[in-house]
Amino acid sequence: MIKNRDQVTEQILAAKVSKGLKWRDVAAKLGLSKEWVTAACLGQMTFDKSQAEIIGEIFELSDQAIAWLQIAPYKGASSLAAPSDPLIYRWYEVVSVYGPTIKELIHEEFGDGIMSAIDFNMDIQREAHPHGDRVNVVLSGKFLGYKPF
Amino acid sequence: MIKNRDQVTEQILAAKVSKGLKWRDVAAKLGLSKEWVTAACLGQMTFDKSQAEIIGEIFELSDQAIAWLQIAPYKGASSLAAPSDPLIYRWYEVVSVYGPTIKELIHEEFGDGIMSAIDFNMDIQREAHPHGDRVNVVLSGKFLGYKPF
Amino acid sequence: MIKNRDQVTEQILAAKVSKGLKWRDVAAKLGLSKEWVTAACLGQMTFDKSQAEIIGEIFELSDQAIAWLQIAPYKGASSLAAPSDPLIYRWYEVVSVYGPTIKELIHEEFGDGIMSAIDFNMDIQREAHPHGDRVNVVLSGKFLGYKPF
Amino acid sequence: MIKNRDQVTEQILAAKVSKGLKWRDVAAKLGLSKEWVTAACLGQMTFDKSQAEIIGEIFELSDQAIAWLQIAPYKGASSLAAPSDPLIYRWYEVVSVYGPTIKELIHEEFGDGIMSAIDFNMDIQREAHPHGDRVNVVLSGKFLGYKPF
Amino acid sequence: MIKNRDQVTEQILAAKVSKGLKWRDVAAKLGLSKEWVTAACLGQMTFDKSQAEIIGEIFELSDQAIAWLQIAPYKGASSLAAPSDPLIYRWYEVVSVYGPTIKELIHEEFGDGIMSAIDFNMDIQREAHPHGDRVNVVLSGKFLGYKPF
Amino acid sequence: MIKNRDQVTEQILAAKVSKGLKWRDVAAKLGLSKEWVTAACLGQMTFDKSQAEIIGEIFELSDQAIAWLQIAPYKGASSLAAPSDPLIYRWYEVVSVYGPTIKELIHEEFGDGIMSAIDFNMDIQREAHPHGDRVNVVLSGKFLGYKPF
Amino acid sequence: MIKNRDQVTEQILAAKVSKGLKWRDVAAKLGLSKEWVTAACLGQMTFDKSQAEIIGEIFELSDQAIAWLQIAPYKGASSLAAPSDPLIYRWYEVVSVYGPTIKELIHEEFGDGIMSAIDFNMDIQREAHPHGDRVNVVLSGKFLGYKPF
Amino acid sequence: MIKNRDQVTEQILAAKVSKGLKWRDVAAKLGLSKEWVTAACLGQMTFDKSQAEIIGEIFELSDQAIAWLQIAPYKGASSLAAPSDPLIYRWYEVVSVYGPTIKELIHEEFGDGIMSAIDFNMDIQREAHPHGDRVNVVLSGKFLGYKPF
Amino acid sequence: MIKNRDQVTEQILAAKVSKGLKWRDVAAKLGLSKEWVTAACLGQMTFDKSQAEIIGEIFELSDQAIAWLQIAPYKGASSLAAPSDPLIYRWYEVVSVYGPTIKELIHEEFGDGIMSAIDFNMDIQREAHPHGDRVNVVLSGKFLGYKPF
Amino acid sequence: MIKNRDQVTEQILAAKVSKGLKWRDVAAKLGLSKEWVTAACLGQMTFDKSQAEIIGEIFELSDQAIAWLQIAPYKGASSLAAPSDPLIYRWYEVVSVYGPTIKELIHEEFGDGIMSAIDFNMDIQREAHPHGDRVNVVLSGKFLGYKPF
Repeated sequence: MIKNRDQVTEQILAAKVSKGLKWRDVAAKLGLSKEWVTAACLGQMTFDKSQAEIIGEIFELSDQAIAWLQIAPYKGASSLAAPSDPLIYRWYEVVSVYGPTIKELIHEEFGDGIMSAIDFNMDIQREAHPHGDRVNVVLSGKFLGYKPF
Repeated sequence: MIKNRDQVTEQILAAKVSKGLKWRDVAAKLGLSKEWVTAACLGQMTFDKSQAEIIGEIFELSDQAIAWLQIAPYKGASSLAAPSDPLIYRWYEVVSVYGPTIKELIHEEFGDGIMSAIDFNMDIQREAHPHGDRVNVVLSGKFLGYKPF
Repeated sequence: MIKNRDQVTEQILAAKVSKGLKWRDVAAKLGLSKEWVTAACLGQMTFDKSQAEIIGEIFELSDQAIAWLQIAPYKGASSLAAPSDPLIYRWYEVVSVYGPTIKELIHEEFGDGIMSAIDFNMDIQREAHPHGDRVNVVLSGKFLGYKPF
Repeated sequence: MIKNRDQVTEQILAAKVSKGLKWRDVAAKLGLSKEWVTAACLGQMTFDKSQAEIIGEIFELSDQAIAWLQIAPYKGASSLAAPSDPLIYRWYEVVSVYGPTIKELIHEEFGDGIMSAIDFNMDIQREAHPHGDRVNVVLSGKFLGYKPF
Repeated sequence: MIKNRDQVTEQILAAKVSKGLKWRDVAAKLGLSKEWVTAACLGQMTFDKSQAEIIGEIFELSDQAIAWLQIAPYKGASSLAAPSDPLIYRWYEVVSVYGPTIKELIHEEFGDGIMSAIDFNMDIQREAHPHGDRVNVVLSGKFLGYKPF
Repeated sequence: MIKNRDQVTEQILAAKVSKGLKWRDVAAKLGLSKEWVTAACLGQMTFDKSQAEIIGEIFELSDQAIAWLQIAPYKGASSLAAPSDPLIYRWYEVVSVYGPTIKELIHEEFGDGIMSAIDFNMDIQREAHPHGDRVNVVLSGKFLGYKPF
Repeated sequence: MIKNRDQVTEQILAAKVSKGLKWRDVAAKLGLSKEWVTAACLGQMTFDKSQAEIIGEIFELSDQAIAWLQIAPYKGASSLAAPSDPLIYRWYEVVSVYGPTIKELIHEEFGDGIMSAIDFNMDIQREAHPHGDRVNVVLSGKFLGYKPF
Repeated sequence: MIKNRDQVTEQILAAKVSKGLKWRDVAAKLGLSKEWVTAACLGQMTFDKSQAEIIGEIFELSDQAIAWLQIAPYKGASSLAAPSDPLIYRWYEVVSVYGPTIKELIHEEFGDGIMSAIDFNMDIQREAHPHGDRVNVVLSGKFLGYKPF
Repeated sequence: MIKNRDQVTEQILAAKVSKGLKWRDVAAKLGLSKEWVTAACLGQMTFDKSQAEIIGEIFELSDQAIAWLQIAPYKGASSLAAPSDPLIYRWYEVVSVYGPTIKELIHEEFGDGIMSAIDFNMDIQREAHPHGDRVNVVLSGKFLGYKPF
Repeated sequence: MIKNRDQVTEQILAAKVSKGLKWRDVAAKLGLSKEWVTAACLGQMTFDKSQAEIIGEIFELSDQAIAWLQIAPYKGASSLAAPSDPLIYRWYEVVSVYGPTIKELIHEEFGDGIMSAIDFNMDIQREAHPHGDRVNVVLSGKFLGYKPF
């Protein structure tokens, strides 16, 4: 019996390590971005039926696991997201150090509201650079404004 | 007596509200990006002497305040960075939901290491869109790899 | 010098107690719902210029306070929101006890996504009832769905 | 041996995923609201004997599991309720941003006391809307006032 | 300017120490129990107008302070309630050690629900005893049951 | 191998649910109060040899489990005591809201010291009442005073 | 206006530093142990009237401060007790490393119960030692046993 | 496979309960104090080879368990040390209430530094007393002073 | 199925205890420092293929475990790093007591920036000393400066 | 009235910024290392009388401030030590990532015990390096071993 989505994530990760797969190749088989497919395989997004079946084939999952992939998951609670990891921590640091800056500049440009984390996408690229390559990440989210009622 | 950089930040914010200034205009006077200048005015970066004097003039700061602007500050601890603010929270949510995705894809591309939050820059732009405008943010940081010793 | 929006909130609350005002009467003067106006007076929303001036007149605020009312505030961090208050705690309890229920039912109806807390409104009414009156609260938020990218 | 109610909840969720059931259909078989039945299946409410037996039949539970369904559970502690889930977090955000507003308006209308989270019910509906459908939630709780003694 | 109820509590406590008053005598002047009056003076309950005026006279409070006494307070957040105090900690320990016992026995007698902390009263008495006097506390709260909806 | 007292508590609770036992009947077989016996069965108190054997018979425990019942347990750390349960939370709320009141009144009557949570007992009763039955709980603890040394 | 006992503690500490006093000399003037007198001066114990007056004279306190010294204080919450101080931390470490040992050995000798922290005293002495002097601390507390009821 | 020292501690405790052993008798077989031996059996200290073999014989441990007893353990993190246990809590309370007193008196006698928790020993004794027996605990640690460099 | 790197760490530690290995000998077989190899074996670093195979041979690991050793791990979250361990706590204390000193002196020498924890190495040595041997640790990290953009 | 050592630290920092002093020059005037003097000025160490007077002269402190410098301070609790600062955080990261490595290697070399943070010193130097200068920090602390008693 598979009790929750986290157990499916563990099976995907163990299969990926054993088979030596790459996320970009998994994404290519679904015809979607590597960013969204990785998030979904890590238990943060919901696959539709045909996507779940392709994932099931790649990672040799049971029918019950494939059913769990189609259920909206409990997100963000995974131990994978621990801020003690140095790479992930740097991102929390960016929000801690630059968060008020981001807030001030978005409000200056758009007024009171937020940048959506749902109607949102992300693109991660390597930029070659003579002093050492850079990671470039583009985040794009719809602006949603507060309105009086 | 000004006891710490936070008190200078409070003076800058109060003057900005009273005078109705814009961060982009402050940045233009220094010839630097609006992102870095806002972070520095919010107490996260160090100004050099001539920059500090221009800031002092714009916000009518005392000499002691201008001296504090040139001292490397204690960063990130300001109450402004509280994750309870909905705009700032969405950014923590992005890291919580997508953090392991970012980690997996950077490691797949670069190997073990981090994306620097120090040798780092950021650009925030409005993108017009028929279904509602979007906030586009580009984050760029040098990759730093772990090496055995 | 007024250092932040919290100080304006304190002035509004102190004036409200001294003058014996009602939130519903304040709202009527702005022609908006009592729910939104109370949230804005408690430092959670941004007033436009003409609204801020009416608020300033009602609570006898200084020009600087009126300027702060027009700046997008740092929300949700106020000590007023402490979960130790029995009334506010009951709302956290509702989310704790019924949260997964809400999540399951919204996903069953809409698929994976969230109910917006930004494109959102609220209405609070008394319902007379022979066994003791009831508080009726209607919350309405736009559904925002996750989409692959 | 089933050691606690959480293990029954896990069995119900795993069966629901495998069989592809809908909460609204489960609720219809008991003749109760989908809101209460989902909360009860998620381990927050107590079923009576005949309700527990219907649930046991739907989800193919053992006699011991059916006995646990009739015991008042330890509520709210389930990992399902983690505030890191974006949908559930939005509800905490509503309480954080609007909590003091709710408190002020209930006190203005009723005097000192609380809105009960026990003598309480809830109704969740979809409202079609040209700019995107809305989730409408009605919460209704008895007012309980403090009285001197 | 009095900014919140906590400041009124501080004034009451300072006056009580300076004047050497007893809570039981304050209560007698209002014709109410010493338990409720002490809670109200410590900022946990709302006085009506005539009660507030008597309190104002006893402790020599300003008109603004007397107005705050009539506003439903933010409860329970006071630093006075810190669990590090040994007397208050013993009460948290009672709930920690005996809490599940209380829960089991109330559910065995009443079914699923709670004992109200709002429709509630309390009586504290000294009981003389040859091995050392005892503190006797009677807590009485209405039972409120969960019902399906 | 039984590794700790918590595992014995789980066995007792599972047996109680399967057999449909009542705490008051268990207590009657030991000739002790239902309050103390329930606390002891939940792992908070130590049984003597003859008591442990009666408990072992009622719940069909192994000899090793019966030996654990006679060892002073690690108290209060059980997940059963989680303050997220609404019934148990109301008791924490009582201590939060009324704790300083209890402290003030005990000190007014007895001087500086505490009410013991060890030399302590408790009695829980139902009181019929036309507006809804009440839970009455009497707590009685020895006063222990601080003395200079 | 002196608002709480902490302010009296601050006055005592500031006077002690300015006047260069020793705790052992303060204790000698009261004819009590240096351990109890220091705890009382740091706001953890209650002085009687004549003791408070001697303390008031030594540290030049106002009448209101002397009145506060005779009120049972809120104990243990002072910032002085922060576990980040290396000396105080070593004591928390002792309880962390040896706590279960202490518990096992007291239960082996006395049965189930506690060592009182109220009917308690302490003696701190220097012991000369060729490898470096030692701090010797004797803690003595009455054993209080749990009894069935 | 034994994965860590905690598993050895569990085996020792389970064997001790089953066999009805006393810590003082275990200590006598090693010719060491009951305090140190109990701490070591609870996973806080390292046994040497011959000590570990005696312990292995007494509690019937495997060779791998005996090997783990000779490895410096991760100390203090055991769930046995939970401050919710009333006996262990009283010790945290002693440090909370008397910690600054201990600090002040050690500094008055020795100057700036700490009392070692490593070069440390402890002795626990019963003292008969007409008003109820007392637990006497002597803690002795080397003083280590800070020195400029 | 091996679900994560932590399980490989457990296998390595259990094998090390059973076989009585030394870290310095493991390091010698890889021709790397004992500091880096120990960190990597404890799950903090990534081995390349040939290193992982040597480690697999020394500790008799399965092929799947050897594959996990070559995946960039989630770092720092291991329960091994708990600050309750006295040795590890002393290091947190050093950062707590000397952290601002380190910050001030690095900024005085280098300007605003950080000392990298990625481009970093460490060397641990014993220094014989007549008053007791010392642990000498050299930490060396590249300085990375903030630059305006 | 100066209430605690933190206020003296604030005065020293404000004077240092106004006068543009360097820690290394302050240290030179005392003939001590820059590391210890900075720690002491930041409120972590105790100055003797003649040192305190030199510090008082450099930073123009009052006699009461100079008296506070000679009192053993409450260490480590200062807001300056907040782990949100990127430079200080890297040090916590080092302990988090490498802590168990340090523990394993010290135990392998020395047996069970700790590296003292009291009998401890530190030296911070710049090392020129073609790929960017490095910060070199040497930490040296006496090994203190646990011994049976």
